[in-house]
Amino acid sequence: MNSAEIERLLHAATARISAASAAPLSPAQIAALIDHTLLKPDASRDEITKLCHEAAKYGFASVCVNPWYVALAAELLRGTRVKVCTVVGFPLGATLPQVKVFEAEVAIKLGAREIDMVQNIGALKSGDDTAVEADIRGVASAAHRGGAICKVILETALLSTDEKIRACLAAQRAGADFVKTSTGFGPAGATAEDVALMRAVVGDQMGVKAAGGIRALDDLRKMVHAGATRIGASAGVKILEQASGGSAGSASSSSAAPGNY
Amino acid sequence: MNSAEIERLLHAATARISAASAAPLSPAQIAALIDHTLLKPDASRDEITKLCHEAAKYGFASVCVNPWYVALAAELLRGTRVKVCTVVGFPLGATLPQVKVFEAEVAIKLGAREIDMVQNIGALKSGDDTAVEADIRGVASAAHRGGAICKVILETALLSTDEKIRACLAAQRAGADFVKTSTGFGPAGATAEDVALMRAVVGDQMGVKAAGGIRALDDLRKMVHAGATRIGASAGVKILEQASGGSAGSASSSSAAPGNY
Repeated sequence: MNSAEIERLLHAATARISAASAAPLSPAQIAALIDHTLLKPDASRDEITKLCHEAAKYGFASVCVNPWYVALAAELLRGTRVKVCTVVGFPLGATLPQVKVFEAEVAIKLGAREIDMVQNIGALKSGDDTAVEADIRGVASAAHRGGAICKVILETALLSTDEKIRACLAAQRAGADFVKTSTGFGPAGATAEDVALMRAVVGDQMGVKAAGGIRALDDLRKMVHAGATRIGASAGVKILEQASGGSAGSASSSSAAPGNY
Repeated sequence: MNSAEIERLLHAATARISAASAAPLSPAQIAALIDHTLLKPDASRDEITKLCHEAAKYGFASVCVNPWYVALAAELLRGTRVKVCTVVGFPLGATLPQVKVFEAEVAIKLGAREIDMVQNIGALKSGDDTAVEADIRGVASAAHRGGAICKVILETALLSTDEKIRACLAAQRAGADFVKTSTGFGPAGATAEDVALMRAVVGDQMGVKAAGGIRALDDLRKMVHAGATRIGASAGVKILEQASGGSAGSASSSSAAPGNY
């Protein structure tokens, strides 16, 4: 990636963030953007059950749960429009490509329709973009064979601008459906700047998912304005209450730090 | 687990910590206790190479790396006594049992001889000890078939006393070789109290590995005194320098917080 091209992409990203806001979103539109997420390792069956009931009630795009809970979520959401999303190679992205493929295949058999995989960050850092792309292609192909989509988590907080761009390009070449900012377990979550950069790189033929630290309606609006077409959040119910005027204002969370477990 | 039995185990653990210290450890004995560890997701090939060279030079028990780097580590350590240790279902423990088995099998084929798996914390929290045990048994059996050993990471910082005890018993019934305190990615790392409790539960027929936040020689000594027979640390070189008197004293790290990535 030469520096003139990096400059051009950063300029496009900045221009997007500075542009006038789009029309406001209705509560139903907001709900349809949200992957209602609970990935902490100590989540119990009761918590996952509650998550699924909330997703059905509010009309979220999906529930995003760890593989162990895919079968439970699929059973609870049968007959609704809410999809089951799960995670692969999560949250480090440092397992073997064939393990990520197998994990995706098994999760799809159990009912997952969206696969959020973590890219191989170490390979990217080592300059092995071929390995990064092959790793993504394996999971994206498995997802598509099973009628699912594939989102690629970059973990932007660990990456340089050049690495963010190269990871987006690898995901695009590998046939993924979305690029996604963060796991929610890294040192920081989504930023509007990263979302806008990712959108500038992938154009309008891929989705961009912002995740990590999105705790309030204003956070969500900023991400959508920057180019996000999906939002990962554990605070979806609170965000919707704000959108419906059911809660005090739309105070943004002061920090975009990710959820800890 | 009835409360009288919990009391008995806690009492045994406290008695161990209060007992007089054992004989001091030589630098070689200390090195042989340490799994020299680098699990951050953005670790590069160069960093893993350095880790392996250090392990061979100092005589650490193993290097502990993510599955993606097992083949590289096995190649670099061929002909040495340093084993390759890797992690499975790491660090959340929330993937499917068959994925953990597959991950262990592939890693063993690539050269891993020690498998540190994360137990299914969500199943434990849901009271499904049968699932916890079956999950461990699958990986422990795969490890033993491949000539490897299996350590079970409890992630003690997320567990109640009752849950710590139940997890140790499940690991013991499932045929695991070690119980291990922490991933290093949770809200806190190893404590001497947890190590002593785990030792009291599993007796002397299993290993106990302390990991997470062990940054100085005094930390290591406390863990060994409490009953640890293996230490996971990224600060092994510094700890050995302290043991050899090559560095300023043996000041313990002030906090046992785990490494962040």
